[in-house]
Amino acid sequence: MTFDPNALKFDSSGLLPAIAQDAASGEVLMLAWMNAESVARTLETGKVTYWSRSRQTFWVKGETSGHLQHLVEMRVDCDRDCLLIFVRQEGPACHTNRRTCFYTAIRDGVEVELMAPMV
Amino acid sequence: MTFDPNALKFDSSGLLPAIAQDAASGEVLMLAWMNAESVARTLETGKVTYWSRSRQTFWVKGETSGHLQHLVEMRVDCDRDCLLIFVRQEGPACHTNRRTCFYTAIRDGVEVELMAPMV
Repeated sequence: MTFDPNALKFDSSGLLPAIAQDAASGEVLMLAWMNAESVARTLETGKVTYWSRSRQTFWVKGETSGHLQHLVEMRVDCDRDCLLIFVRQEGPACHTNRRTCFYTAIRDGVEVELMAPMV
Repeated sequence: MTFDPNALKFDSSGLLPAIAQDAASGEVLMLAWMNAESVARTLETGKVTYWSRSRQTFWVKGETSGHLQHLVEMRVDCDRDCLLIFVRQEGPACHTNRRTCFYTAIRDGVEVELMAPMV
């Protein structure tokens, strides 16, 4: 079946969540949002391109920082309302300069920071 | 720092996305939604408990199917608006009886089904 980005299920803002997972390590790096056009651009360019909700604009991940996400494979879930994107990540994925955005664990009711920013 | 589920950032519906990842294999299994109370219940009971948007009720994953998700570790992201939950999954995570909800890849513009339902 031919894939049509417009046939995905978007929320009332025209967005769906996209999970970026490191294709080599399996580490989940971040979650951000895409509209149909950013899904299409990601597939066309091979550069993972989100929709920035705060800036209301397309966001080629790493365009300014150099921390690009190269598309390895896109997957769609059973409900067609969420994407899993395997990527080759250049540098840290997180804006705090950490490898992943999920660097805080909840252990025994306390927040534990698991990693320091990359230098 | 003590963790307070109410200090997370929820959307206008009081929800945030929660990614379930198999703690052993690293496979991303599904994405569903949580409110503050389902975060608290998940931590208290050790059974991953979402908020069902379609049924508008708490959803103890696997409560009816037996395909429970046992909490291994909860992580919160840098923006505090998304959770990554490491789980020990009993049986398939997907309602289609597949191990993961992300069983469809987009390859050369075509949807490719990667796995069959578990028997």
